[in-house]
Amino acid sequence: MKRNCVVLLSGGIDSATVLAIAKNKGYDTYALTFDYKQRHRIEIERAKDIVASSNVKKHLILSADLDRIGGSALTSNIQVPCGRGEVEISKGIPVTYVPGRNILFLSYALSWAEVIEAYDIFIGVNAIDYSGYPDCRPEFIELFENMANAGTKSGAEGKKIHIRTPLIRMTKSDIIRKGAELDVDFRLTWSCYDPAPDQKPCGNCDSCFLRMKGCKEAGLTDPLLYNKEP
Amino acid sequence: MKRNCVVLLSGGIDSATVLAIAKNKGYDTYALTFDYKQRHRIEIERAKDIVASSNVKKHLILSADLDRIGGSALTSNIQVPCGRGEVEISKGIPVTYVPGRNILFLSYALSWAEVIEAYDIFIGVNAIDYSGYPDCRPEFIELFENMANAGTKSGAEGKKIHIRTPLIRMTKSDIIRKGAELDVDFRLTWSCYDPAPDQKPCGNCDSCFLRMKGCKEAGLTDPLLYNKEP
Repeated sequence: MKRNCVVLLSGGIDSATVLAIAKNKGYDTYALTFDYKQRHRIEIERAKDIVASSNVKKHLILSADLDRIGGSALTSNIQVPCGRGEVEISKGIPVTYVPGRNILFLSYALSWAEVIEAYDIFIGVNAIDYSGYPDCRPEFIELFENMANAGTKSGAEGKKIHIRTPLIRMTKSDIIRKGAELDVDFRLTWSCYDPAPDQKPCGNCDSCFLRMKGCKEAGLTDPLLYNKEP
Repeated sequence: MKRNCVVLLSGGIDSATVLAIAKNKGYDTYALTFDYKQRHRIEIERAKDIVASSNVKKHLILSADLDRIGGSALTSNIQVPCGRGEVEISKGIPVTYVPGRNILFLSYALSWAEVIEAYDIFIGVNAIDYSGYPDCRPEFIELFENMANAGTKSGAEGKKIHIRTPLIRMTKSDIIRKGAELDVDFRLTWSCYDPAPDQKPCGNCDSCFLRMKGCKEAGLTDPLLYNKEP
């Protein structure tokens, strides 16, 4: 019997790879994408493209007004830092951190999971090659799972909910290798936080930096063209 | 120095009382209300009235498309059970449970708290005279708080976040007495899950039942008129 799962799908390399992993494990996948008024809303279009090329049961795109809460370079009028590089990225929590974002996304996923009777929620968080966000760490995921099992009908009825994070201990190049192995079409994915008006990736933000570094280490030519040639 | 807090304000007796408690403790209050496409959206108007009569710093009304997720009598085309009474209410989780609702509301509150530098989030959950929802229990609140401290910038920086639940161990009549003591204007509050087309409370749903029972036990005449006289 097929099992249902919810996959958080932003449209980036990581979540596209997670979707491929969940499908490869035999799940019926329900993809969840957010329009949270992010600067790089183009990623939503890429999420749709990824879904169109995959055998997904349902794709739900929900709106979350995080621009009305603010506090992040991705949702308000704060400059996205450019050209920080590896050393700078390791220094604390950057302004691209969106307060409570993964908590919120996982909460919506939990709500949907209850309705479709899914007990597995997949999220592409990563604690190795990442930007220092607190909501990407293994200790957070474990505590979210505990909370989820106490605060839901599924949990109260003894059906254990799992937050699945297959990428959490992988480097970006490992993720890219894994995605390539599972035939993820990286042309459909999006990473840049601060696209140019012509919708080319900037090649300068943390997310572009990590993508370019990962591709290089994995020996893969990134199919996206950058404003600034890598 | 004043401290900021976020108060989840639905527009009911409980959350109006919690708002009064937070103000009485000297907090600067930031009220958060949701339009989650609930059947009883009239409560949002009542929340506005409560805010208008209180000295609240800011009132944010956010939209959450829980109707697109469904699975509850409050957000989809499922009948609200009527006239269940005390014995029936104690039996398991009813169809008015909204999957993941309090988790989602607390997550948004957490996001806002990070931005306004608030470390206290007030929610009017109650584990005594309540409808059997898993997301109203003390064990859930404790685990949410643990998760919040691991998954946010505030938590990562060692500024402890508290989920404050002043009503959790009170009966409905205790809550009503407390509210009356703090001059909560119950005329402005709303409880009914299933208002009639003329926007009168039904007098029959679990929420009306608990309100009427609480008022009676507290010796207070409920200022709301019911379709079915209590």
